[in-house]
Amino acid sequence: MIALVGATGLVGLELRQLLAQAPLAGNPEIRLFASQARPQDKVYALDSSAKELGECDFILNMATSEIGQQLREGMTRAQVLIDNSSAFRMDPDVPLVVPEVNGAMLEAPYSVIANPNCTTILLCLALNALKDIGLQRVIVATYQAASGAGIKGLEELDAQLKAAGTGAPLPKPEVFPYPLMLNVLSHNTPLREEGRLGAGYNEEEGKVIEETRKILGISHLPVSATCMRVPVRRAHTEAVTVDLKREVTLDELRKLMAAAPGLKVVDEPALNHFPMPLEAEGVDEVLVGRMRRDVALPRTVHFVISGDQLRKGAALNALQILRKLRELRA
Amino acid sequence: MIALVGATGLVGLELRQLLAQAPLAGNPEIRLFASQARPQDKVYALDSSAKELGECDFILNMATSEIGQQLREGMTRAQVLIDNSSAFRMDPDVPLVVPEVNGAMLEAPYSVIANPNCTTILLCLALNALKDIGLQRVIVATYQAASGAGIKGLEELDAQLKAAGTGAPLPKPEVFPYPLMLNVLSHNTPLREEGRLGAGYNEEEGKVIEETRKILGISHLPVSATCMRVPVRRAHTEAVTVDLKREVTLDELRKLMAAAPGLKVVDEPALNHFPMPLEAEGVDEVLVGRMRRDVALPRTVHFVISGDQLRKGAALNALQILRKLRELRA
Repeated sequence: MIALVGATGLVGLELRQLLAQAPLAGNPEIRLFASQARPQDKVYALDSSAKELGECDFILNMATSEIGQQLREGMTRAQVLIDNSSAFRMDPDVPLVVPEVNGAMLEAPYSVIANPNCTTILLCLALNALKDIGLQRVIVATYQAASGAGIKGLEELDAQLKAAGTGAPLPKPEVFPYPLMLNVLSHNTPLREEGRLGAGYNEEEGKVIEETRKILGISHLPVSATCMRVPVRRAHTEAVTVDLKREVTLDELRKLMAAAPGLKVVDEPALNHFPMPLEAEGVDEVLVGRMRRDVALPRTVHFVISGDQLRKGAALNALQILRKLRELRA
Repeated sequence: MIALVGATGLVGLELRQLLAQAPLAGNPEIRLFASQARPQDKVYALDSSAKELGECDFILNMATSEIGQQLREGMTRAQVLIDNSSAFRMDPDVPLVVPEVNGAMLEAPYSVIANPNCTTILLCLALNALKDIGLQRVIVATYQAASGAGIKGLEELDAQLKAAGTGAPLPKPEVFPYPLMLNVLSHNTPLREEGRLGAGYNEEEGKVIEETRKILGISHLPVSATCMRVPVRRAHTEAVTVDLKREVTLDELRKLMAAAPGLKVVDEPALNHFPMPLEAEGVDEVLVGRMRRDVALPRTVHFVISGDQLRKGAALNALQILRKLRELRA
């Protein structure tokens, strides 16, 4: 039996849709949990359903870090928690897994597995294609969608779109500090004024930097990130520069990307057809294109990726972890 | 007397507005030219007004490269052409000028002065602040506005906004190859499949790379650019990474940016208030913020800039060149 916690949030809803399209082997019962019960949708209230939760073999937490912490405290020894929050991602005793990259970690008997940050998952899938060449340095600038801020973020963008499109005054922003419509914003997570990463980094950038190193298993890899929101609904785009340990030809780069699991090359210069969020929405793969060798530096390459942050960036990755764990433990 | 060619385009209109707000010293006549005459607005047809054009001391070309070429061929020895197209920018005999950066070049008696690409002007103003520290490498990812594609680009975005906001189907895109609304696109200039810069670069990226080197006077500076369009009306945003020749403290970086001409620091972490295109619209200065030292590399810094591409990115810069030339030659 599987518990899905946060079943009514954007990621939870996406996970339910993915499960409906491709049920799990053996058709186990999926129990839905959220902060508020919704009997008509068979959603249990998390706080008052310890028994129903305790009967599940796997718990998928698609809710907050606080709920992730509570779930871990209440778990039995037989249960496994797959947690999409940031609560355990940097815990050295918890594997942080993108199955295509480091899925082998699932073979060890961990009781908690962390699902990485959405921007990080997309980035790591592309970096994974270059890992055998050797990564020397990674620089990423992001174009992140409103859905990363949850249902309320998406609704805020939709309301602004409606107002702007009809000439009405924009409603006062609440999720994002300024209007996102027709704008570009620095990512709306708090800034670390004096953190381990130094002053001026927002939490999203901290996640991209630290989680990428952990997933790739290269603890001192220089990774830099500038995380921005753009008026896009649900797919994140990233402009990526990678310094490699050796030179690659453009042809080799294209072949590496085409062969890597989880990626789909979209690179048609004659049509100006490259990865874009509108085409990445609802797609399992991360789109990759705009592949180029640096003009001046022979071991540097550039490319653009775009991926559905609710799907491979969150729900699909968690589901892949669940499927793999169930196979391994069957 | 001043000729303004391309007087009915977006940049021409912006220039007229700037001139109306702050007239030139001595109030010279400004003659307007465009491809089509508009007698009601006192706009001459360029093709049939050689006499009216020939009487002007300065010609400002805010139209295409082809028109720039024609104007140069038809110029008298006494005339000076300030050209906003890309026709002469990389000509070794033509200075490419951002007055705050290399305005001293205007002291020599050039007959043609090139106004740089909009993205490049904004970038060079920020790099100028760091030039004395020493630039080693520049990496930029852009978030460019629709207005960079002219009036038709802006109108296309506005039409898509109206359709999306009212739930109507989006009109078929014509200026951009795909819908820009709720999307992010690779820049819509043609790609150089086998150019001097190598395969896969679009022309905008080529301009940023080559013009930045020329303006800064560092011919082999490694500059890389990934140029993207976002659904924004008229200000460009850029995420910039710079490797410097020596380490700077964050405090030093902030002071250098605050002291540099043409920049305005917008960096209030507690309010998540940073450069954003909605606030850069209609502003002369380029906004700079999100200043950070790299997490791993002590000589690397990151920041974000946002500037009005019609104003400092085009019309204002050309007007600054004109004012300076008139002062020098008065």
